[in-house]
Amino acid sequence: MKTYTTTPKEDGFRMPGEFENHLGTYIIWPERTDNWRLGAKPAQEVFAQVASAIAEHEAVTVAVNEGQYANARHMLPDHVRVVEISNDDAWVRDCGPTCVTDGKEVRGVDWRFNAWGGLVDGLYFPWDKDDALAQKVCELERFNRYRLDHFILEGGSIHTDGDGTLVTTEECLLSEGRNSHLNKEQIEAVLKEYLNVEKIIWLKRGIYLDETNGHVDNIFAFVKPGECLLAWTDDKEDPQYEISRECLEILERETDARGRKLKVHKLHLPKPILITKEESHGVDAVDGTLPRKEGDRLAASYVNFYLCNGGVIYPTFHDENDQRAEETLKECFPDREVTGIYAREILLGGGNIHCITQQIPMV
Amino acid sequence: MKTYTTTPKEDGFRMPGEFENHLGTYIIWPERTDNWRLGAKPAQEVFAQVASAIAEHEAVTVAVNEGQYANARHMLPDHVRVVEISNDDAWVRDCGPTCVTDGKEVRGVDWRFNAWGGLVDGLYFPWDKDDALAQKVCELERFNRYRLDHFILEGGSIHTDGDGTLVTTEECLLSEGRNSHLNKEQIEAVLKEYLNVEKIIWLKRGIYLDETNGHVDNIFAFVKPGECLLAWTDDKEDPQYEISRECLEILERETDARGRKLKVHKLHLPKPILITKEESHGVDAVDGTLPRKEGDRLAASYVNFYLCNGGVIYPTFHDENDQRAEETLKECFPDREVTGIYAREILLGGGNIHCITQQIPMV
Repeated sequence: MKTYTTTPKEDGFRMPGEFENHLGTYIIWPERTDNWRLGAKPAQEVFAQVASAIAEHEAVTVAVNEGQYANARHMLPDHVRVVEISNDDAWVRDCGPTCVTDGKEVRGVDWRFNAWGGLVDGLYFPWDKDDALAQKVCELERFNRYRLDHFILEGGSIHTDGDGTLVTTEECLLSEGRNSHLNKEQIEAVLKEYLNVEKIIWLKRGIYLDETNGHVDNIFAFVKPGECLLAWTDDKEDPQYEISRECLEILERETDARGRKLKVHKLHLPKPILITKEESHGVDAVDGTLPRKEGDRLAASYVNFYLCNGGVIYPTFHDENDQRAEETLKECFPDREVTGIYAREILLGGGNIHCITQQIPMV
Repeated sequence: MKTYTTTPKEDGFRMPGEFENHLGTYIIWPERTDNWRLGAKPAQEVFAQVASAIAEHEAVTVAVNEGQYANARHMLPDHVRVVEISNDDAWVRDCGPTCVTDGKEVRGVDWRFNAWGGLVDGLYFPWDKDDALAQKVCELERFNRYRLDHFILEGGSIHTDGDGTLVTTEECLLSEGRNSHLNKEQIEAVLKEYLNVEKIIWLKRGIYLDETNGHVDNIFAFVKPGECLLAWTDDKEDPQYEISRECLEILERETDARGRKLKVHKLHLPKPILITKEESHGVDAVDGTLPRKEGDRLAASYVNFYLCNGGVIYPTFHDENDQRAEETLKECFPDREVTGIYAREILLGGGNIHCITQQIPMV
C-alpha cells in the first residue's frame, strides 16, 4: 500500500454518493461488554441480520478481533467473508476508510480517529486499534491511501452527493474534541481537498442527545443529487423539533454545488426511546467508557439507513412510525428493495445501521 | 466461505506443482522471542528480503499478529500486502492451506496442524492460532475449503508434481505425533483423495536432525514432472550421506504416476552448520518450546528453495557450496531468475525459505 502526500482533488479522485454502485460493504463485529449488553450477544444477532440483508445485494466483509473470529464465523452466513482486523468497537462508518475514486481505481482516505472527541468528550479510551483500521482495510483491499495525521473525522459526520456537495453539522465538525486547532474555513478547505467537493452545507445540530456530537448521518441522507431525507417530528414539545426545523430551513435556503435547490423528504422519527433498567444492567460499568444509564434517551432515527446495490436497509423500533418510514423510503427509492431490521440492540450501543456499515465503491 | 464434506478428488480438484503459475505468495511475519533471536529482529530483516525478492515475481501477502502490524508494514516494501492473521509462529508452508484447483476455481485444503508432533514431540504449545490460519487465508481470498478434522499434515511434508505423483517421507508421515491412529495405507488413501494423486513415493528420512521429523521439502523438490532435486553430500562420514543415498536409491528405482523414471539432480549441501553461543543466548528460554542450544547442528539445505513465477529464491549459507548450488539451480531452471538470500537467520528458527512461503495457484 502506498501512502500519498498529494490530495484526492489534486489526483482527480472524488467520494461517490452512497447510492452509487458498491464493490461491497465492511462491517465490524461487536464485542465490547462495556458497550453492548449481555456480552454483546443480542447485538451480534442483529449485526448478523444486517450483514445477511446486505449480502443479498453485495459482497460483505466482517472485520473481527481474533478472539471473536470463530464465533462470528459461526453466526454469519457462509457467503459473508470474515477477516481479522483488530478494533476497539464496531463503528466502521466512523473509523473505516472514506473511499474515493477516479472511476478506474479506488483509494482510501484515512482520517485520524479519536473515538468521537478524544480526551475532551470521547466515548472510550484507548482508540488506537480503531484508528489503524482504515489502513488495514486499504491494505487488505490493495487500495493505496491518503493519510491525514492532523485531521480528525468520522465517516458518519459527512454525507456527499457524489456531485460536488457535502453536508455536515457544526455541532460535530466544530466540536472542541475534533479539530479545534482549525477554524471553519480551514476545515472546509480540508474537506474540499480530500473529498473533492465544492460546496459544503452546514447544518447546525444532529439528532437530540446523539453521543457522536450530532453526526449528520443520523439526521440527514441524500437520496440522489438534489434530493434528500431529513429526520422529522411534528411534536413541538420535543427538543428535536427545533433541531429538525432549523435543518429544514437551511436545506430549503441552500443550493448545492450545481446550483440546484434540494428536494427535502421528511422521515418521521419514532417516539422517544429510553434505556430500560434491564438493558442498563446488562452493560459492564468501565471507567472511561460512556455509561448506559436507565432512562437515558436514545438517538433513534430512521435516517440511519444504509444504501447497498439495489437495497435500502433501515432500522425499525417497534414504533407506530415504522410503517410510515418504510413508505417514505419506498417512495424515495422506488427501484430499491426496502428492508427493515429491528435494530434496538444497535441503537443501545450508540448508533444504527448506517453507523455500522461502510461502502467500498465499484469502479 | 463454504466447507465441503466432499473431497477434492471427487470434485475434480488437484494440487498443482509449485512450479506452475501462482496468483501469489503468503508469508507469516516472525516474532516469537523463544524461537527467533534478539526479539526476532534479524529474522524479520531476512523475511523482508525474501518477501521483497518474491514480490519481484508475484503478489506477496504477509500475515502478522496485531502487535507486529505497524513494524511489519514499515519493514516491508509498499507493494507487499500486510494483513492481520493471528499465528503462533512463521511457517505458512506448514499451517497454511494446501491449494487445489480445477482450473477454474481455487479451494483450500485445511489440514489439522499440531506444531510438528503435538504432545508427542511438537515444537511449541499451544498451536491453536496456527491451526486456524489456513481457514483465515481461505476466507480472506474468498476460497471455499476442505477441512480434515482428524488428519494432521504440514505442507512441508509433501511435494507434488501436479501430474499425479506425491513424494513424502516415512519419518514424518508415519511419526507417532501425526496420525498414529492410521496405518500407511490409510494415510495414502487420504493423500490420494485430498490432493488427487495416484502415486505416492515414500522416502525414508529427511535431512539429518531436521526438527520437523524429516520434512520432504528440505531434502527433495520437483523441478517439473519427471525431474527432481535431491539434497546430497559426498562426505561418507556425515550421517546425512546414508540418508541421501537411501533417498537416491528409492528415487532411481521408482516410477511416477505416469510411469516415468525420475531424473535426479544432486544439490550439494553446505558443510554442517552449528548454533553459536551468541545465537543460542539470543533466544528466550521457554518451557515447552524446542531450545536452541549452542553447538546443535542445523538442518541446512539448499533444497529448501521456493519457486515463484519466473523465479527461484534459494537460501545461501556463506558456504563454499553456495556457488555450486546456484549453478545447479540455474541448470535445472534455465527460464527462471535464480536469487540467493543469506538465510542463516531463518535456519536458526528451524526451517528455510520454502518453509516460510506458501503459493496460491493461478487459475
